[in-house]
Amino acid sequence: MDAIHSGWFSEIQNDLWPGQSFSLKVKKILHEERSKFQKIKILDTETYGRCLILDGIIQRTTKDEFAYQEMIAFLPLCCHPNPKKVLIVGGGDGGVSREVVKHPLVEEVYQVEIDDRVVELSKKYLPTMACGFNDKKLNLVVGSIVCSQGGSFWLDYNYIKKQMLNCSIHFPRVAYAVTSVPSYPCGQIGFVIGGLDKSSDFKDPVIKFSSSEIDAMNLKYYSSKIHSSAFTLPRWIEKNFYENEKPK
Amino acid sequence: MDAIHSGWFSEIQNDLWPGQSFSLKVKKILHEERSKFQKIKILDTETYGRCLILDGIIQRTTKDEFAYQEMIAFLPLCCHPNPKKVLIVGGGDGGVSREVVKHPLVEEVYQVEIDDRVVELSKKYLPTMACGFNDKKLNLVVGSIVCSQGGSFWLDYNYIKKQMLNCSIHFPRVAYAVTSVPSYPCGQIGFVIGGLDKSSDFKDPVIKFSSSEIDAMNLKYYSSKIHSSAFTLPRWIEKNFYENEKPK
Repeated sequence: MDAIHSGWFSEIQNDLWPGQSFSLKVKKILHEERSKFQKIKILDTETYGRCLILDGIIQRTTKDEFAYQEMIAFLPLCCHPNPKKVLIVGGGDGGVSREVVKHPLVEEVYQVEIDDRVVELSKKYLPTMACGFNDKKLNLVVGSIVCSQGGSFWLDYNYIKKQMLNCSIHFPRVAYAVTSVPSYPCGQIGFVIGGLDKSSDFKDPVIKFSSSEIDAMNLKYYSSKIHSSAFTLPRWIEKNFYENEKPK
Repeated sequence: MDAIHSGWFSEIQNDLWPGQSFSLKVKKILHEERSKFQKIKILDTETYGRCLILDGIIQRTTKDEFAYQEMIAFLPLCCHPNPKKVLIVGGGDGGVSREVVKHPLVEEVYQVEIDDRVVELSKKYLPTMACGFNDKKLNLVVGSIVCSQGGSFWLDYNYIKKQMLNCSIHFPRVAYAVTSVPSYPCGQIGFVIGGLDKSSDFKDPVIKFSSSEIDAMNLKYYSSKIHSSAFTLPRWIEKNFYENEKPK
């Protein structure tokens, strides 16, 4: 179970999702290279469109990338009353910045990405994502930075709990939200969100966009209702993540 | 991409999820047979526990079956003010009846399953699910019946729309809800729910169990909050499914 066999790409085995594997049927290998930091592969797939793969792990497919990009952008943006300046760490395909610049209150975006090859290849092969780099609000910096993101609660919720604990060292308010992305392991990805105001309730967006505003920003996944439900976790996870908090 | 190769089971290719495939690492093949109706396989897997496979498609794994069984049982039960009598069509592993009999208002359950071999093999190999057959509220009937269930909106939302349309011939109120199950295609499964009262709002459970009641029933996934969020759909699906309805 590794890379491409008989026209199928299978994700490499990984300690984060042991004993399971997701595969996509490949139409064409568009590009393969080893950059200074990682192996980059761009595929055209039968049913998930173009697919960006880093070190054997699916990062984005054009079929479902909006579910990830919209949610990682608008969940924190809509928890903040006036998100004028935004820092994005990673996101070299450009899709997160594409979403962030849509928010009418955002004036300036700084994005730091470690690998300029991901940026360049995304501009060439994934233009519907890399269009995010064209906005005049955006300042892109290529540098070395560590970044982490929350996985699926189905895989290792102790790892997510640890991330939340680390986050809580700097942010008194920490929460975990989740979105459905079929090409990610277990069909979902999570987000750990931290805030400085202990009393804030991330589940209730500070800014609630109307349906027509959502449509004007061409958001396909995000809405204020989806925002709230993203923080609603299955009972066993809710107990596990928040059991030490006082009940509201 | 079919059945077991080098210690991995891969789901067979299927028109419902073209160009993608989910695989599980196999520890041991516990049982294989061809019944009057289908091919039945029961595996012990590395990380998803025991796994029931019918005609090459994963039906249940002991790791994540509760997310499916609890939600398909409690979503409709908690939309009903007094669910005394319940009819279950299918569900031969026994897990749905295991959940349904937990509801304190349920007095009698009739279950109709086409294949007695699934029932017998579940009793032998999947006792944590088949325990549902032991409850005195349950009357099990083996017969021939057609059954359908909603898939993931990531795969074919027109198919789900058609199911909802069919359902609306008999039920004036129809809605679609979704739950996260990593071993199902795209990591989720949907439920089409129909009701006779046009004014009912399935999203708001008629019966809201408290946290201690939820825990007493040993529900790991379901809660009243998860009930509501299960009906909260991504913006593009919400528009697609409900665009012809009058806005509330």
